[in-house]
Amino acid sequence: MRKEKDKIKIIPLGGFNEIGKNLTVIEYKNDIVIVDCGLKFPDDDMLGIDVVIPDVTYLLKNKDRVKGIFLTHGHEDHIGALPYILKQINVPVYGTKLTLGIVQIKLKEHGILSTVDLKYIKPKDIVKLDNVSVEFIRTSHSIADSVAIAVHTPAGVVLHTGDFKIDYTPIDGCVADLARFAELGKKGVAVMLADSTNVERPGYTMSESTVGESFENIFFSAKGRIIVATFASNIHRIQQIIQAASKYGRKVAVSGRSMENIMAVAIELGYIKIDKETLINVDAISKYNDNQVAIITTGSQGEPMSALSRMAASEHKKVNIQEGDTVIISATPIPGNEKLVSKVINQLFKKGADVIYEALADVHVSGHACQEELKLMHTLVKPKFFIPAHGEYRHLKQHGELAVKLGMPERNVYLGENGDVIELSRDSIRKVSSVTSGQVFVDGLGVGDVGNIVLRDRKHLSQDGILTVVVTIEKDTCTVIAGPDIISRGFVYVRESEDLMDGARELVKQVLKECEENKIKEWPTIKGNIREVLRGYLYEKTKRRPMILPIIMEV
Amino acid sequence: MRKEKDKIKIIPLGGFNEIGKNLTVIEYKNDIVIVDCGLKFPDDDMLGIDVVIPDVTYLLKNKDRVKGIFLTHGHEDHIGALPYILKQINVPVYGTKLTLGIVQIKLKEHGILSTVDLKYIKPKDIVKLDNVSVEFIRTSHSIADSVAIAVHTPAGVVLHTGDFKIDYTPIDGCVADLARFAELGKKGVAVMLADSTNVERPGYTMSESTVGESFENIFFSAKGRIIVATFASNIHRIQQIIQAASKYGRKVAVSGRSMENIMAVAIELGYIKIDKETLINVDAISKYNDNQVAIITTGSQGEPMSALSRMAASEHKKVNIQEGDTVIISATPIPGNEKLVSKVINQLFKKGADVIYEALADVHVSGHACQEELKLMHTLVKPKFFIPAHGEYRHLKQHGELAVKLGMPERNVYLGENGDVIELSRDSIRKVSSVTSGQVFVDGLGVGDVGNIVLRDRKHLSQDGILTVVVTIEKDTCTVIAGPDIISRGFVYVRESEDLMDGARELVKQVLKECEENKIKEWPTIKGNIREVLRGYLYEKTKRRPMILPIIMEV
Repeated sequence: MRKEKDKIKIIPLGGFNEIGKNLTVIEYKNDIVIVDCGLKFPDDDMLGIDVVIPDVTYLLKNKDRVKGIFLTHGHEDHIGALPYILKQINVPVYGTKLTLGIVQIKLKEHGILSTVDLKYIKPKDIVKLDNVSVEFIRTSHSIADSVAIAVHTPAGVVLHTGDFKIDYTPIDGCVADLARFAELGKKGVAVMLADSTNVERPGYTMSESTVGESFENIFFSAKGRIIVATFASNIHRIQQIIQAASKYGRKVAVSGRSMENIMAVAIELGYIKIDKETLINVDAISKYNDNQVAIITTGSQGEPMSALSRMAASEHKKVNIQEGDTVIISATPIPGNEKLVSKVINQLFKKGADVIYEALADVHVSGHACQEELKLMHTLVKPKFFIPAHGEYRHLKQHGELAVKLGMPERNVYLGENGDVIELSRDSIRKVSSVTSGQVFVDGLGVGDVGNIVLRDRKHLSQDGILTVVVTIEKDTCTVIAGPDIISRGFVYVRESEDLMDGARELVKQVLKECEENKIKEWPTIKGNIREVLRGYLYEKTKRRPMILPIIMEV
Repeated sequence: MRKEKDKIKIIPLGGFNEIGKNLTVIEYKNDIVIVDCGLKFPDDDMLGIDVVIPDVTYLLKNKDRVKGIFLTHGHEDHIGALPYILKQINVPVYGTKLTLGIVQIKLKEHGILSTVDLKYIKPKDIVKLDNVSVEFIRTSHSIADSVAIAVHTPAGVVLHTGDFKIDYTPIDGCVADLARFAELGKKGVAVMLADSTNVERPGYTMSESTVGESFENIFFSAKGRIIVATFASNIHRIQQIIQAASKYGRKVAVSGRSMENIMAVAIELGYIKIDKETLINVDAISKYNDNQVAIITTGSQGEPMSALSRMAASEHKKVNIQEGDTVIISATPIPGNEKLVSKVINQLFKKGADVIYEALADVHVSGHACQEELKLMHTLVKPKFFIPAHGEYRHLKQHGELAVKLGMPERNVYLGENGDVIELSRDSIRKVSSVTSGQVFVDGLGVGDVGNIVLRDRKHLSQDGILTVVVTIEKDTCTVIAGPDIISRGFVYVRESEDLMDGARELVKQVLKECEENKIKEWPTIKGNIREVLRGYLYEKTKRRPMILPIIMEV
């Protein structure tokens, strides 16, 4: 039997039972390999939070063993936590050219670019560490230059697919390296972790090229300007917009900070090809006829501050939507964004634009494998054990069932949770312990200083507002010498609620009088009494429960 | 030429450029007919709001002419504002038996049932008013007993379809009265208002019966208990669950307040047929084997307090989800509810249930007409003018285009907004003026007392919390005699932010000192200075902008 420390351990610290903040730890002996380091966007109940990153307490405790962070691709949910985590654990970051190009933008924004050791790798490269070696295998996804990662250990191979789809006609001609997956499968893969996002969808994800065909049709018939909103990182989509524009004699302008940043990197690195004459500054669009202009922009998720939302609301400095414009929203709303997107569509239609979106034409395809593609990957890799990754529980569960349907014994599938320490032996996969895991909230400059108490208060405040009661009391005599004053925010429209407030003030006076008479000098008790009396009164009068904040000043 | 007052006027007060709060005014001479009186559920940015109802200022000003409220069906977005509006304008309410049965539940809850004149009508009935008569025409929808409404005036017929679909095999056997629509079309319809919800969907909406077939398959093979969540008002869906249960020897229990209420009414009125032995109390389920039990419940939208959510979270008093349960979510998430529904699905899977939802099986169909059904309605009714109704702008616009494709001149389509006074003459449809319209927020007992200022404050509070600064000042000398005290809520975790708060307090002290030295006695000025200094300080330190509330007490 192998020694305990010679076993492979896999510890997901993010991306399990959730969409986002992907971070998986793969350990063998003294080597810790981190696959991806992503962020998650906050849920609706995380009020005021900017982004959510994984809790990496475990990595901090094992800093010395961490050999590097290995990136599968450049999406936020796989690289977005890097600036925060690298400030705590400065290790080399491995990625393909485009992935690291995007990482550079982020690190520069956080002012730590010069301190980070970026290691460029290419598909088929192998990085040798002390006890393991890490191999990169080309995949397809909705961003160029994506890879799967195979960690070779004496105890077997761990394959993490990253996000992937099977696209036989990708825009850059670089099909996923199916041969290498098959080769690994033939030699034997101990365990596979694989993308579960689209496991509920039967069939195949359409090729990115099909979107190009739709673009061609739209560009062929559009008479005015064409504005296309898509994800800034979807380099191939952008390339197809440029191709359609060139074909029909349109110049291409770009609007939106992230689109400008990422396009600049992609053009510089050769991932986007565009003639110098075709690319124009957005300031110059008025110099051309409407049918000579195409604008690529951000805002496909209806984000209120994005370029497209500003155009739709007539708040964009350079582009105002006009009758005859054709606007293509080349994306699907991420769950939770449906209403925002719909709002933008309505505004665009009202301004007279022709709006084309997924419900009306094939202007978007997913970047994730559907059931038949997943089956192909499982069949090629034939792993001994399987850990469904990247998904909510519903996805992980169904991906596990898919593996079982393909012939894997049920006991060889492990449905993990963040923080599980999953140990692999020759014959079994099992959880041996757990480590700290969870979500760290980033709010402004604060990383982790907003916790559940603060969020609970924000939630409370958001529903019924706050009512502050202030009173100044003479310490020795317990006499009120100023107040009580009552100030509310977010509770009622004060001018129309004077009676309600007068009533509240009277009740507080009574409470104070009773306390004075009974010589109650404990402020917490007095505050408690005020809170209790007001809570009942306000609920009876309004059926609302504002936060009640009594403040006693003593002189 | 007809006299001004002899023209038909149509005034939408809700349901245009929005989903919900449907209320349309149809006027001719001295008669005002109101079609529907619905509510809308609040958008994400309407924090703490319970429901939104239409602004009916116009109706209050014209109370004497209002002849009644005529209901097309019993959904919340068509009847939900009744309790609020009837308190202001007490007019007769006309509706079919089931519609008024559901209205009764609402009016009882609001304690005004006895004061309202409910007039029961049947399809084909005609109600004669002073100058117009109102006819009811059977339609199909996702609730039983739905009707379209035709207002016959000497100046022509106004037809409002209400919400509808074309179902050739409805559960109650009552197909929409296509013959009557055709007959009206033949005689001539001046203007049609029609449901635009599904105008973006090609083809036909599936028949309700198809869901029954899915249920039969699931009930045939399920080995444990079956729990089905659906809309309480979807009587036909519920009937099909009961049929499947009876066929496979299962008792039926009901959980969830609205489900219990509406089912009681529907059974009493004969809309749901169920054997006395089949219906059991939810307390009694443990007396039966798991494969003898089916539970019908609320919560298909993942509402946090609903029965299904409580079952999924082990907070339901009587039903705990167990291994082997089959849970069917027989609904589609309304935009905005996707994440809530997904959360419940994950919880149910984790508890070992087999969860079946729209992505996996045909367990739901829409209640609204798709493109081919809309074309049928347009072709039968052949209206001279057309007003797309019930939809966001994107839907109204596309429904207008559909009419034009069928041959209607573009100038005969009117894309309306709430508050438009739309006048019909023989040859034209045009807006002649506008009346007050908008949204009235209901929050607890308050109707209209929460406005934009309160909502803006709630939004502000929800993002970064509040920081209250209190100080007691001796009036004449401007000396500080107590404080400044700083108390925050929802801003930072206080214990870890003592330095930040100490710094803030020092800054406030400085401001007060300067004011004292400069003999500034205007409290608003002092407060303004405190606010300004703290805002800059806190933003620099945290990149957050909490609400800052300075309170000065004088003695």
